[in-house]
Amino acid sequence: MSAINTSENPRDIAVDVRPAEGLPPEIIDPTVPVIYIDDLAARRGDGIFETMMVRAGRVRNLDLHRDRFVRGASLLDLPAPEVDRWLQATDMALSAWDDLGGGEAALRWMYSRGRESTGSVTGWVTISAESPSVVRQREQGVRVMTAHRGFSLSISDDSPWALVGAKTLSYAMNMAALRHAASRGLDDVIFIGDDDRVLEGPTSTVVAVTGRTMVTPSQQAGVLPGTTQAALFALARRRGWETEQRPLTVADLRAAGGVWLVSSVRIHARVTELDGVELPRPATADDVEALAVEAATA
Amino acid sequence: MSAINTSENPRDIAVDVRPAEGLPPEIIDPTVPVIYIDDLAARRGDGIFETMMVRAGRVRNLDLHRDRFVRGASLLDLPAPEVDRWLQATDMALSAWDDLGGGEAALRWMYSRGRESTGSVTGWVTISAESPSVVRQREQGVRVMTAHRGFSLSISDDSPWALVGAKTLSYAMNMAALRHAASRGLDDVIFIGDDDRVLEGPTSTVVAVTGRTMVTPSQQAGVLPGTTQAALFALARRRGWETEQRPLTVADLRAAGGVWLVSSVRIHARVTELDGVELPRPATADDVEALAVEAATA
Repeated sequence: MSAINTSENPRDIAVDVRPAEGLPPEIIDPTVPVIYIDDLAARRGDGIFETMMVRAGRVRNLDLHRDRFVRGASLLDLPAPEVDRWLQATDMALSAWDDLGGGEAALRWMYSRGRESTGSVTGWVTISAESPSVVRQREQGVRVMTAHRGFSLSISDDSPWALVGAKTLSYAMNMAALRHAASRGLDDVIFIGDDDRVLEGPTSTVVAVTGRTMVTPSQQAGVLPGTTQAALFALARRRGWETEQRPLTVADLRAAGGVWLVSSVRIHARVTELDGVELPRPATADDVEALAVEAATA
Repeated sequence: MSAINTSENPRDIAVDVRPAEGLPPEIIDPTVPVIYIDDLAARRGDGIFETMMVRAGRVRNLDLHRDRFVRGASLLDLPAPEVDRWLQATDMALSAWDDLGGGEAALRWMYSRGRESTGSVTGWVTISAESPSVVRQREQGVRVMTAHRGFSLSISDDSPWALVGAKTLSYAMNMAALRHAASRGLDDVIFIGDDDRVLEGPTSTVVAVTGRTMVTPSQQAGVLPGTTQAALFALARRRGWETEQRPLTVADLRAAGGVWLVSSVRIHARVTELDGVELPRPATADDVEALAVEAATA
């Protein structure tokens, strides 16, 4: 067996959830292989995931992630996850992470169709440290290009196989868009659909802010409901802000007071430049970012 | 480490291609885990694959698969595969398969972005026996539903991140469509786009035959160029058949003399029923299927 690649992140934590085995989750060594060659996560991207923020030893907005995870499993016809088992695995991972010194991190749930040879689902909980770019982009913002998604989702209600609303492991296209941006010296992407309609980032939700109103694109086909956006909007409303979900165009972004990409671990990344044009930092920026941090770390 | 799932297919063969290690490929034990938890094949479906037929100890149409594999790697900005290394791994797998008794099989190349912690690509060659349903569908045909893909690819030239033409590991949607068909007691799916335009099967290419003319949908955005279809059409032309690539509608399929799904391992599966309506077996069916077998096993 080939095991000459040892992890360069020895602090990484991994727990085998053993979702099909009727046995408790088990801490595993992430410096040796843990996934079988016939696992459909690797063969077909056939499964779902969630990425959550760990701060001060606790997973933030776990309920929102758990709910989307359960919905995603249903959309993919995966066996309904035993939530208690996933929470137990999460606690084990957090405890191990804490033993290693803790710190801000990304915790991931990965749930796979499982092995072709056994037909049994597989799943893991992992923790790894935030990358430096996450913190940098949170503090300094991101330079962004718009990108036609390359497809338009229009008939999701009649096409359950389009898996609209599920955060699947089939992210090759999202990763390709981010690579494309990087090759142009940029940090991130905003996907747009027909008629210049704003969709989402490859790993984030778009929020435009004007005055004390926050707007995010309608949760139409092709826009994954964002946990961080949901938490932010709920908190913002309680603090007297207006929030709207409605169709947004690229022109709307340019006309907005400010634009952010929000996501669980990076939390907020203000769009400082969109397609080469500088976007303003609005007077409310500090308030928006403070609200985002509070919401994302609840 | 959890290793209580042992393979139910002990005859499966796996070779670690070690594409980034400067070491020769290595036979590995597929009954223990071989993929690291941070491999982007499993995390993001970020890689490519090919599935090829093994018959009588030899991979069929290897050149066509190799060419698509190399193109796919380029589309995904993966390091250009060292083809000799992949061929060496393939020979090792075939030899091991032969030692176990050989027989018709599916050989797979899997090439992944690799591990997040190392940034180095990973890759495997595997062999597993054909499933009984493959042979049954080849002999008896398939009952098929049409399915709106749920998205339309229209601007691929401007959207390299859409990865049009690459056979990526992000196949969750294709798998979902097949599950949907199975849940309705059907065998397979033909994806259709706007205006009832025929695209492809989730793991096959559509071929309609009328008289001595074979037609396959134009290689528009959203249709993966099929290796088996290419081999079949090239052979058919040499034998005096007409072949065409042009837009096809569902009505065209209903009006055709016969319709097949062609792919590397199953080779041919005649569509016996489309959306509940029986499709005829044309007088030329035996000739078509004989040509397909000859082309697919070249």
